[in-house]
Amino acid sequence: MNVPTFTVYTEDAVARFMRIRRQTLALCTGLSGEDLQVQSMPDASPGKWHLAHTTWFFEQFVLGHDLAYRSLNPEWYYLFNSYYESVGPMHARPQRGLLSRPTLDEIFDYRANIDEAVGELLLRGVTTELAARIELGLHHEQQHQELLLTDIKHMLSCNPLLPAYRNMSAPNQSKTSPLRFLPGREGPVDMGHEGHGFAYDNETPRHTTWLSSHALANRLVTNAEYLAFVRDGGYQEAGLWLSDGWAQVQREGWQRPLYWQEDLASEFTLAGVHPLDPHAPVCHISYFEADAFARWAGARLPTEAEWEDAAAQLPIHGNFQESLRFQPNAVPLGEGLLQMYGDVWEWTASPYVSYPGFKPLPGALGEYNGKFMNGQWVLRGGSCATPRDHIRASYRNFFPPHARWQFAGIRLGQDR
Amino acid sequence: MNVPTFTVYTEDAVARFMRIRRQTLALCTGLSGEDLQVQSMPDASPGKWHLAHTTWFFEQFVLGHDLAYRSLNPEWYYLFNSYYESVGPMHARPQRGLLSRPTLDEIFDYRANIDEAVGELLLRGVTTELAARIELGLHHEQQHQELLLTDIKHMLSCNPLLPAYRNMSAPNQSKTSPLRFLPGREGPVDMGHEGHGFAYDNETPRHTTWLSSHALANRLVTNAEYLAFVRDGGYQEAGLWLSDGWAQVQREGWQRPLYWQEDLASEFTLAGVHPLDPHAPVCHISYFEADAFARWAGARLPTEAEWEDAAAQLPIHGNFQESLRFQPNAVPLGEGLLQMYGDVWEWTASPYVSYPGFKPLPGALGEYNGKFMNGQWVLRGGSCATPRDHIRASYRNFFPPHARWQFAGIRLGQDR
Amino acid sequence: MNVPTFTVYTEDAVARFMRIRRQTLALCTGLSGEDLQVQSMPDASPGKWHLAHTTWFFEQFVLGHDLAYRSLNPEWYYLFNSYYESVGPMHARPQRGLLSRPTLDEIFDYRANIDEAVGELLLRGVTTELAARIELGLHHEQQHQELLLTDIKHMLSCNPLLPAYRNMSAPNQSKTSPLRFLPGREGPVDMGHEGHGFAYDNETPRHTTWLSSHALANRLVTNAEYLAFVRDGGYQEAGLWLSDGWAQVQREGWQRPLYWQEDLASEFTLAGVHPLDPHAPVCHISYFEADAFARWAGARLPTEAEWEDAAAQLPIHGNFQESLRFQPNAVPLGEGLLQMYGDVWEWTASPYVSYPGFKPLPGALGEYNGKFMNGQWVLRGGSCATPRDHIRASYRNFFPPHARWQFAGIRLGQDR
Amino acid sequence: MNVPTFTVYTEDAVARFMRIRRQTLALCTGLSGEDLQVQSMPDASPGKWHLAHTTWFFEQFVLGHDLAYRSLNPEWYYLFNSYYESVGPMHARPQRGLLSRPTLDEIFDYRANIDEAVGELLLRGVTTELAARIELGLHHEQQHQELLLTDIKHMLSCNPLLPAYRNMSAPNQSKTSPLRFLPGREGPVDMGHEGHGFAYDNETPRHTTWLSSHALANRLVTNAEYLAFVRDGGYQEAGLWLSDGWAQVQREGWQRPLYWQEDLASEFTLAGVHPLDPHAPVCHISYFEADAFARWAGARLPTEAEWEDAAAQLPIHGNFQESLRFQPNAVPLGEGLLQMYGDVWEWTASPYVSYPGFKPLPGALGEYNGKFMNGQWVLRGGSCATPRDHIRASYRNFFPPHARWQFAGIRLGQDR
Repeated sequence: MNVPTFTVYTEDAVARFMRIRRQTLALCTGLSGEDLQVQSMPDASPGKWHLAHTTWFFEQFVLGHDLAYRSLNPEWYYLFNSYYESVGPMHARPQRGLLSRPTLDEIFDYRANIDEAVGELLLRGVTTELAARIELGLHHEQQHQELLLTDIKHMLSCNPLLPAYRNMSAPNQSKTSPLRFLPGREGPVDMGHEGHGFAYDNETPRHTTWLSSHALANRLVTNAEYLAFVRDGGYQEAGLWLSDGWAQVQREGWQRPLYWQEDLASEFTLAGVHPLDPHAPVCHISYFEADAFARWAGARLPTEAEWEDAAAQLPIHGNFQESLRFQPNAVPLGEGLLQMYGDVWEWTASPYVSYPGFKPLPGALGEYNGKFMNGQWVLRGGSCATPRDHIRASYRNFFPPHARWQFAGIRLGQDR
Repeated sequence: MNVPTFTVYTEDAVARFMRIRRQTLALCTGLSGEDLQVQSMPDASPGKWHLAHTTWFFEQFVLGHDLAYRSLNPEWYYLFNSYYESVGPMHARPQRGLLSRPTLDEIFDYRANIDEAVGELLLRGVTTELAARIELGLHHEQQHQELLLTDIKHMLSCNPLLPAYRNMSAPNQSKTSPLRFLPGREGPVDMGHEGHGFAYDNETPRHTTWLSSHALANRLVTNAEYLAFVRDGGYQEAGLWLSDGWAQVQREGWQRPLYWQEDLASEFTLAGVHPLDPHAPVCHISYFEADAFARWAGARLPTEAEWEDAAAQLPIHGNFQESLRFQPNAVPLGEGLLQMYGDVWEWTASPYVSYPGFKPLPGALGEYNGKFMNGQWVLRGGSCATPRDHIRASYRNFFPPHARWQFAGIRLGQDR
Repeated sequence: MNVPTFTVYTEDAVARFMRIRRQTLALCTGLSGEDLQVQSMPDASPGKWHLAHTTWFFEQFVLGHDLAYRSLNPEWYYLFNSYYESVGPMHARPQRGLLSRPTLDEIFDYRANIDEAVGELLLRGVTTELAARIELGLHHEQQHQELLLTDIKHMLSCNPLLPAYRNMSAPNQSKTSPLRFLPGREGPVDMGHEGHGFAYDNETPRHTTWLSSHALANRLVTNAEYLAFVRDGGYQEAGLWLSDGWAQVQREGWQRPLYWQEDLASEFTLAGVHPLDPHAPVCHISYFEADAFARWAGARLPTEAEWEDAAAQLPIHGNFQESLRFQPNAVPLGEGLLQMYGDVWEWTASPYVSYPGFKPLPGALGEYNGKFMNGQWVLRGGSCATPRDHIRASYRNFFPPHARWQFAGIRLGQDR
Repeated sequence: MNVPTFTVYTEDAVARFMRIRRQTLALCTGLSGEDLQVQSMPDASPGKWHLAHTTWFFEQFVLGHDLAYRSLNPEWYYLFNSYYESVGPMHARPQRGLLSRPTLDEIFDYRANIDEAVGELLLRGVTTELAARIELGLHHEQQHQELLLTDIKHMLSCNPLLPAYRNMSAPNQSKTSPLRFLPGREGPVDMGHEGHGFAYDNETPRHTTWLSSHALANRLVTNAEYLAFVRDGGYQEAGLWLSDGWAQVQREGWQRPLYWQEDLASEFTLAGVHPLDPHAPVCHISYFEADAFARWAGARLPTEAEWEDAAAQLPIHGNFQESLRFQPNAVPLGEGLLQMYGDVWEWTASPYVSYPGFKPLPGALGEYNGKFMNGQWVLRGGSCATPRDHIRASYRNFFPPHARWQFAGIRLGQDR
């Protein structure tokens, strides 16, 4: 007989669950039902939908695991399923903003009810499989915290009034380290998740890869440097761009990073329009822009293997969601690789594909990552909107090459 | 010297102003900020936008007429200008739903402030020109009351939960008059607004036209009759449709009126899904559908001249916004032309063009009507969402031939 | 017993059939199989398709009327049916240019075969109904001769080499009559086809309409006059345009008539690029442009009733296809209404709708005209690409308001 | 002083140049000017354009290298530049089919003139740089020979008559080898071009990579096997597809490979419609389909490194363009890896990106490959439309994941 392993959560574990769930609500403080209703583009979701979908995730994959479970709102499954084809049909993504009902208050109640039910379950004890799903749900929750922030930022930026989400604490300094290239290792190295602690399926299996001779920049590309690229006609010079990137530049009329204002001296932030900090890392750029900048600079982007091999040596600290600044800090003074974690996601030269021997999670949760392995590029390191305990050296974020609304920037690499 | 004529409003006139303005708010009772935020398609606007735009209309064209006037929110002019190119640039129509700010509460304050200022102005007295603009503003307000209702209905219909706006009073009866064709006048007749009382510029000048021998149906086409058309394969038979209409049917997969449910036995109303009343006039159909039905029935649609000549003889009563039913009533028993006013707008066979000698209003208000005289068809008679005192025999409503979200139905006509 | 009336054609009548059919081929002289293969936009068709479709028309509606008839290429019915839904499915219009097979030579053979078969039929004698269809087929052929020319012109204009179709005879003069407005009749008038000679169904029935007090310009608007409009910022001034027209101007970046070159001093013609003749009528403009120009000029476009009432008094002569100039002549000196026929089609202020009592032809041929009565405006008078014997006072051409590739120009009208 | 190395071509070398150039013309035998005029989709080009563009390539990059060179048709540079932004602007790709002029005869003359000029140049002697460009031009010519065939096939397939390009020689056999997985090497291997003989820049530099434990299928996936996937509901099962692939399947209504007919028993070939050979490799499928099939089969696609490491051991023979069959042969009986070269391109699991240390060619020719390194997947091995001497083990072809009109099929791989 196959007895499932069983876990009873400690009060601390329950408190962690509640803390992460409540953090999502905390990010909505100061936003109205109207703010949380708007979907500013098909790629973004309304804040209210994030609140509901992350809750649906626990209802669907944790509570719903018990066949005796009866949902109070079974018709919401359709509304708040994001892309899990194997659990049923779903509301079309570009129409998420049309759902004025259920109301925000109903979604708050929904969150409270599901949290209570999951909390009780935790205290009663759960199978190892269910414990893994709950853990996945919490990391999923944290991903949506970041998306909530980037989606709210985009939504506010579409308003000609350019309103603020919150005040921003003052920038912390105003001198940057000079740019230097630090050599990385060459030859066979292992990469991927080590096996203890949580990781998404796409970080596994740990496997050997081969690093060519290379170096990584000690720091991120700054606004001042990117401005030089803009002023040098970077957006007018086809030869700097990938073909698809150049087509995008032409079609969309790109002239500068997404949130830079026309004066090239200020940018839209979650605190409204602020002067552009020349020492801060350039942010909200696409892969196309990162790649074109690197070519202009006579360098290239690092591969994800190069990045991970270097980052794995470093402690994880930096400017994360917890700083409540929601804006990258200026490049600090210092030795070694600076700001590898936090501040801005770093575009890599690696398309998002599976590792050798990759196996998606079984069942519907196998749709979490694997089916997106086409047409996207890997980003590494987390950002000022990422929760501190969400990131790790092996973490693989991914977005299409034209995506600009994430907190994404550039670290240069080079062949040696 | 040219002394402008001057009008001091009575308290009754001020009360009428306030009553009409407050009616718009009354229609929002029970709707949340989220409900009023959503724009369900480019042709529709968010409820909040309607509230703001009608207020902007008074600020722009009445208060702003005084050069000394200073707006509290001059940056809102851009947001709430609909299509008046000559007063300045405007926010793109399809993006009205993105404006979570100003908040609904700020819009309520905006309405109160502008109403107070206009109210004071009225009591101080205004020039004849300004009085005419205020009158235009009130009719404009009433048009938007109807649009608010049709836009809210469309928005709720896009929600898979099919929620209700309000409860609906019970239908008033269940027998209909048999269909008969009543002959109209033949030869030269005068049409257009007579010259006393308010009218839009597009109803003028009164002029002679020639009526051919014809007859009008005594009543509207019912759901039962339209259902027979559907069941007879009306939506599969190219020969019944205008070429553009057939292309639309194919492209959009039309199979039935907009709000009919797939069972052909129920329909979405502002009170949620209700059984289809076989005796009620068919509603929410496009010109294409009205025209195809008429062809199937061996008849045609009336021209607007035929309609107006007949309607001008009749008192204006019927099922209007004031009934708070927001749904057409069943066809009543009775003699003569029934339900000419209210219940559903009646598509005519007349493209929306200018009358001979037409002169648009001077200045920006000339953009109100004249520039839309292309590609649209005239509807007559008002609907269950039209305020009672907004309609008249000469009133010309107009929509593109594919528009279905208005309360529009069919009265047949025929050549004699 | 119902004996069908029977007509035996004279040799002259057969010769007329052959002459009109051969004229279509004559227009293709100098064009290669490649030239006749290209479809430059969905609204246009390849020359080869015109050659085949007009032949199919006789095969389908004349030869195919005999149930014993067997087509040599029954699979071509699908390819060369344009829009007759009731005779069967058809190849999608925008894909006509993909048909490299059948080859041009096969189409030439097809034409010869069908012409021979129809010629024999004519000499044997045909029923009155068939005679009417043959007559319709010849007028249909002539319509396609004009379309062939306008489609070839558009196709050549899309080639950056701007190649010529033929040489053009020299312009005939260089002084124009001054613009004067000549009053028309007021009151009830009859319009529509009189009843002897051929007419399309949409010109019937003859009926009474009412003319308001008005006048028509004695001549067409010239290139010089239109240039003044362009130079005066006509394409930058929203207030001059219908709302849909302004949207089109913005979306398509219109700055001048379709075939004017950027220098505003030359234009593309069927003879290549030539200097713009200031005295020639402006040509290849849309309804939107005609309407905006009229508004700028303080005038309006004539209605089709006004136009027809005036034209019916005039003999039909002018610059037609037979001149082989394929370009409008300069406005001549002279009295009365000049160039009412030929040179350029004249946009009217009348949407294309049915006349009172209109009955489409029975059967599939009822699709010829009636189903297009939506969203189009009437043009009158024929052009330099129209065969002389194809036009008449009651002839109603129609195109959507954005169409520019026809030989269409402007005659002004005004209220009196 | 820097004396350029100088090469005088032998008569054999000139003969090779002429032979490769003439082969392009030979492929056009039996096609009319009309056939060579049509562009069936934006991704494809007209045959005439291929003939001209490959000639332009020699004119631009070889003859034009001599500053004293004067083109006879300088205005054609604009027309026949494909995508080389750095040598000047170009005609928009989707409009290549509109160019009825220059005529096919003019293009034939153009080819003859340029060939003569290049031939003379070769006999006079050229610098090493120019010799390299001529070599590139010949490989470029061969690539376009394959594209010409695939574009003609697509064009003919768009014609409802489904006409044939040529007759096809009979299939060569009708038994297939059973499917077996043959293990590949594990550990560090070198890949990329070795350094003697021609290669594109994207095949360099040769570098080390790491192979995980894996195996490759001994043969290609057959039509019979793919039919089993179709019959098993492969196109209805979201879980088998990448997310983008599933969206494509839904949007385009994919149900089977591009050229399979609805009966699932026949397919369109360059010889018209023929019965589907169950033993032949499935062909004309997209990456999305190859990947979904592999998942359904419990396998995966090989990486390009795995493929190249295996192929480098094998002689290059197979079913190439020279067989004039233009259709993949049935899978043969035999040992080892079968049909690695020729028949069908093999989709790999490798996104098309640069090798470590990649340097594009200097100047405009650097646009040849490098700028397309986004959103495409690598294919290996050549096809029945590839010239025999065009392919090699290190050759990297690439197409977007939805592309189906190339001769592309599937070899499975698996983790060990």
